[in-house]
Amino acid sequence: MKKTELLYEGKAKKVFKTDDENMLIVSYKDDATAFNGVKKGSIQDKGSINNRVSNYLMGLLEKKGIPTHIVEEINDRETVVKKVQIVPLEVIVRNIAAGSLSKRLGLEEGTKLDKTVLEYCYKKDELGDPMVNDFHIYALSLATKEELDKISEMSFKINEILSEYFDSINIELIDFKLEFGRTADGTVILADEISPDTCRYWDKTTGEKLDKDRFRRDLGNVEGAYQEILKRTLGDS
Amino acid sequence: MKKTELLYEGKAKKVFKTDDENMLIVSYKDDATAFNGVKKGSIQDKGSINNRVSNYLMGLLEKKGIPTHIVEEINDRETVVKKVQIVPLEVIVRNIAAGSLSKRLGLEEGTKLDKTVLEYCYKKDELGDPMVNDFHIYALSLATKEELDKISEMSFKINEILSEYFDSINIELIDFKLEFGRTADGTVILADEISPDTCRYWDKTTGEKLDKDRFRRDLGNVEGAYQEILKRTLGDS
Ligand SMILES: Nc1ncnc2c1ncn2[C@@H]1O[C@H](COP(=O)(O)OP(=O)(O)OP(=O)(O)O)[C@@H](O)[C@H]1O
Ligand SMILES: Nc1ncnc2c1ncn2[C@@H]1O[C@H](COP(=O)(O)OP(=O)(O)OP(=O)(O)O)[C@@H](O)[C@H]1O
Ligand SMILES: [Mg+2]
Ligand SMILES: [Mg+2]
Repeated sequence: MKKTELLYEGKAKKVFKTDDENMLIVSYKDDATAFNGVKKGSIQDKGSINNRVSNYLMGLLEKKGIPTHIVEEINDRETVVKKVQIVPLEVIVRNIAAGSLSKRLGLEEGTKLDKTVLEYCYKKDELGDPMVNDFHIYALSLATKEELDKISEMSFKINEILSEYFDSINIELIDFKLEFGRTADGTVILADEISPDTCRYWDKTTGEKLDKDRFRRDLGNVEGAYQEILKRTLGDS
Repeated sequence: MKKTELLYEGKAKKVFKTDDENMLIVSYKDDATAFNGVKKGSIQDKGSINNRVSNYLMGLLEKKGIPTHIVEEINDRETVVKKVQIVPLEVIVRNIAAGSLSKRLGLEEGTKLDKTVLEYCYKKDELGDPMVNDFHIYALSLATKEELDKISEMSFKINEILSEYFDSINIELIDFKLEFGRTADGTVILADEISPDTCRYWDKTTGEKLDKDRFRRDLGNVEGAYQEILKRTLGDS
């Protein structure tokens, strides 16, 4: 598989076309941004860590029956993925109140939610990715009812699988963001990435944050957190 | 029925206890506020217009099978209502994009929505009444699934009845806000008010706004709009 033209350069990844029209190559960058691009920086080795961690987690999910876009990791930073049409929604899955939910609903960070909370945000940078509900999604034709049912079902299942897995490496999965896409035949599969950039997780013993909040909130030892997640997931390999 | 103590003074109404513990008397004020109380003013005769218009519209709804809190209008400004425990949600029903929806989703005001949109906002002034979805509602125990199903079903039905009615008086119903409450036996009924304060409606011929947006946006002739709604609904009675 060969990269041809650059299709899209995002804040965290470059996406290239390939000589196979159904495949893309994603190349993970070390660039870090927060607050819709307002805060900018770089985290050493983030690209290669996120690439490998994301592929590892999506591999676990595949084994448990979740279809993902992953085809093949070709080097530390780059992975061949199935080309999809991204459903323009960020699906946020929350087990514990943190971040924007804490602020919006006045819940102290760390409050256990009685039931898992799903949120959808309309992926639209100019609007600041506003939260939307099912009715908005249908009114804007962002997804069909069938697609949204599939997306919410998969999201809950992914949460179960990942929460159990992180628990086994002494990490509490607080919340995370997913993106889904449609393949050429219209099947909805998991796309984008699952990494310390897109999750919140806290060490179960110390409560230490091991995710991008260290960067967002200037907590220090940002690289250390990303390395720690690499170590706990892929080991010292 | 006699007013006893003042139970609650809101921005638009005073609510009094009565000598019947299951009944309250609502007294409508001329005070007008907008943007969560930041803009303040007064609209002549608003209290008596809103009281009479709301009772008239709720009467129409009752006839079509929607249970409401209305018991009896006792004078131009005051009505006896069933005491309920308010479900702490503002239910917003939207047929045409306007106001906060237009801004949040980048839809020009006046855009017809393909499908009716329902939104729930958590009634909590300190938080600015944030939008919530079903999952938030269950996680915060604001309503049960059964209650929310009932509330959405009633809201759609109310929208059908009111849209048809307003159409008959040459008015397009853009959006409106509802509140529901639980009676002593747990039945969910329509409460609060339906008035130019809580709806957006535009004259079908001229497009003229006949609602509180005239106050919010300093469009002039605020009193005239309220009077016009009184005239078209209750006639010159
Ligand atoms: N399998 C895929 N096929 C097509 N596009 C994909 C696939 N997986 C992820 N993408 C998209 O590629 C882009 C990845 O770049 P990056 O994560 O850096 O974007 P971003 O800066 O976060 O911007 P965006 O707001 O578009 O997500 C995203 O737009 C993402 O939705
Ligand atoms: N039948 C009822 N039983 C009990 N409370 C009611 C009933 N109908 C309406 N209410 C409540 O009475 C209050 C009416 O006052 P008003 O509309 O002025 O309040 P407000 O300033 O809008 O504040 P709020 O944010 O509480 O709605 C509201 O809190 C409303 O929810
Ligand atoms: Mg991204
Ligand atoms: Mg009110």
